[in-house]
Amino acid sequence: MGKLLIVGTVAFDAIETPFGKTDKILGGAATYIGLSASQFGIESGIISVVGGDFPKEYLEMLNNKNIDTSGIEIVENGKTFFWSGKYHNDLNTRDTLITDLNVLADFRPVVPDNFIDCDFLMLGNLHPAVQMSVIVQIPKRPKLVALDTMNFWMDNTLDELLEVIKKVDVITINDEEARQLSGEYSLVKAAEKIHKMGPQYVVIKKGEHGALLFNNGNVFFAPALPLEEVFDPTGAGDTFAGGFIGYMASTHDISFENMKRAVIYGSNLASFCVERFGTERMINLEQEEVQTRLQEFKQLTQFDIELN
Amino acid sequence: MGKLLIVGTVAFDAIETPFGKTDKILGGAATYIGLSASQFGIESGIISVVGGDFPKEYLEMLNNKNIDTSGIEIVENGKTFFWSGKYHNDLNTRDTLITDLNVLADFRPVVPDNFIDCDFLMLGNLHPAVQMSVIVQIPKRPKLVALDTMNFWMDNTLDELLEVIKKVDVITINDEEARQLSGEYSLVKAAEKIHKMGPQYVVIKKGEHGALLFNNGNVFFAPALPLEEVFDPTGAGDTFAGGFIGYMASTHDISFENMKRAVIYGSNLASFCVERFGTERMINLEQEEVQTRLQEFKQLTQFDIELN
Repeated sequence: MGKLLIVGTVAFDAIETPFGKTDKILGGAATYIGLSASQFGIESGIISVVGGDFPKEYLEMLNNKNIDTSGIEIVENGKTFFWSGKYHNDLNTRDTLITDLNVLADFRPVVPDNFIDCDFLMLGNLHPAVQMSVIVQIPKRPKLVALDTMNFWMDNTLDELLEVIKKVDVITINDEEARQLSGEYSLVKAAEKIHKMGPQYVVIKKGEHGALLFNNGNVFFAPALPLEEVFDPTGAGDTFAGGFIGYMASTHDISFENMKRAVIYGSNLASFCVERFGTERMINLEQEEVQTRLQEFKQLTQFDIELN
Repeated sequence: MGKLLIVGTVAFDAIETPFGKTDKILGGAATYIGLSASQFGIESGIISVVGGDFPKEYLEMLNNKNIDTSGIEIVENGKTFFWSGKYHNDLNTRDTLITDLNVLADFRPVVPDNFIDCDFLMLGNLHPAVQMSVIVQIPKRPKLVALDTMNFWMDNTLDELLEVIKKVDVITINDEEARQLSGEYSLVKAAEKIHKMGPQYVVIKKGEHGALLFNNGNVFFAPALPLEEVFDPTGAGDTFAGGFIGYMASTHDISFENMKRAVIYGSNLASFCVERFGTERMINLEQEEVQTRLQEFKQLTQFDIELN
C-alpha cells in the first residue's frame, strides 16, 4: 500500500450550470483528487494553502477520510482561492467569471516530514513553479510521479511547464491541451510528441468521450459512462486523476496492465463527481457504489470475439 | 449464413479534404454498406439506381465481391446521383457543395425475385418513402431490419421517416441526429425516446468518439480506433452500418451479445474506410487486415479487474 502526496489547490468555487447555481462551496484540484483517491483506503496527504476564512469542518471531513491535511497551510489573515464559472448549455464549455488567487498568489509549498518518503506523487493543476518546488523537496524519487495541468500554463508559463513535464512519469491533460502542447491534431501523434517531452505515460482526457492512455505504441481507452444527467462537470478531470493515482498507490504496481485498471477507476469515479454540484457526491460516495459501477463499466466495454 | 438486401444510393462523389481533392469517384451509401458487409462472405444484393454514365467496371467490381447488382437499375439516358463536399480542417464538419439527384429523383425501387426472401434488410440513408416501399415489397418479415438516416429527412420528411422508424429493429444515427429526433441532449435519454418510436436497438454513432448500442437499459460502447491520420471521413458511417449488418447476417444470431460484436466490427471496418479517399481502402481490404485490427480493438478496450 503506497503513500500518496497530492499538491494542488484547495478552494472555494461558485458554479452556475443550466440546472442551478451555488454559493461559495468547497472546491479545488487537490480536494477532488484527495476525495477520489481516498476511495482506495490509502495513506494520503495534501499540500496546499487556504485563508482564515476556510471552515475547519472541511479539514475535519478530509481527515475523516484518512487524508492528512497537515500540509495545508492556513494563512489566518488571508482569503482562500476563489473561482467562479458558468457552464454553457451543453456543459462542454464554460466561462470563468472570477479568479481571485488570494493566498495562492504567494504559496510556497512545504512537504511535511511524514510525506518526504511518499512513493506516489500527484502534481495537481497549479503553477508549474509550485509543482517543481515540490518535486525538488523529495530526495528519493517516488515510484510514480503524475502531473495534471491546463492550457493556462501553456499560454503563460510554457518554459517552466516543460521543465516539470520532463520530470514526470505520467501526464494527464485534455484533448485540446494535448493538441496545443504538441501542435498535432491527431491524438496519436500528439501523444507521441508528448512522450518525447518526458512522460512515459500520456493520458488524454476527452470529458464525456472518455480517456486514452498511451505508452510507447500501446494504447488503451476508458469510456465515460453514458449518464442520464450530467449535473456539474466541475472537478471531473481532477476526480479522474485522483482515481487513477489512488488506484495505482493502493496496488503499488506500475505496469501498463495495471494502469488500464487505473484509468477505468478514474473514469468510474469521475462519473459520480458530475452527478451533483461540487464535491457533494464524492464526499458521500460509498465503496459499494463504485463496485456496482465497475460492473457497469465491464458490461459497457467487454466483448468476446474469437479471432479467425 | 443469412441473405442480406441493401437499399441505398450508388453515386459519384467529389471530395475535398485538407489532404487533397478528388474528381468524380465511386460513392453512395449502398456502395459503402455493400463493400463493408462483403468482408463476411455473405450473399448480398443492392437495390439502387444509376445513370448511363455509370462505369460497368464498378458493377463488375461489386459482383467480384459477391454483391448481386441485378437490383441496380440503369437509366441509360439519365445521369448518376452526384454529391460534392468539402471538409473543414478538423474533418468533423463539412459543407455540401453540390447535390445533383439526377436519376435518384424518380427512383422506384424493385426488390429482385432472388432477394424477396432476404432475412437481413439494411435500409441505407435515402428518402424514407423509398425505404418504406422496399419494406412493403417483402412479404415475410426479415429476421432483422436496420435503418440508417440523417438530419435532412428529419427536417424535410419527418412524418414519413417516423412511419419507417416504427417498422425497424435497429436504427443507426449520429449523436446530433439522435438529439434532433428525440429532443433530448443526453444520449441515454435520447435512446430511450427513440426506443419508444419503434426500434428495439438504437445505435448512436459519434464519429471519432465511437458508437453506443442501446437495448432496453443495456448499453455497450465501441470506441473508434485512435488513428495517426484520418484522410477522408466520407462513407465511414455507412461502412460502420455495413460491418454491423454484415456480421449479423454472417452469424444469424440477433442476441444483444452478438450485436456487441457487430458494432465492434462496424467500428473496425470504418477505421479502414477513413484511411484513403472514398472507397479505395475498402475495395482493397483483406480479411487478414480486419483480423489484425480486431486484435488492436481488444487491446484497446479489454481489461481485467476483479470486483470486490
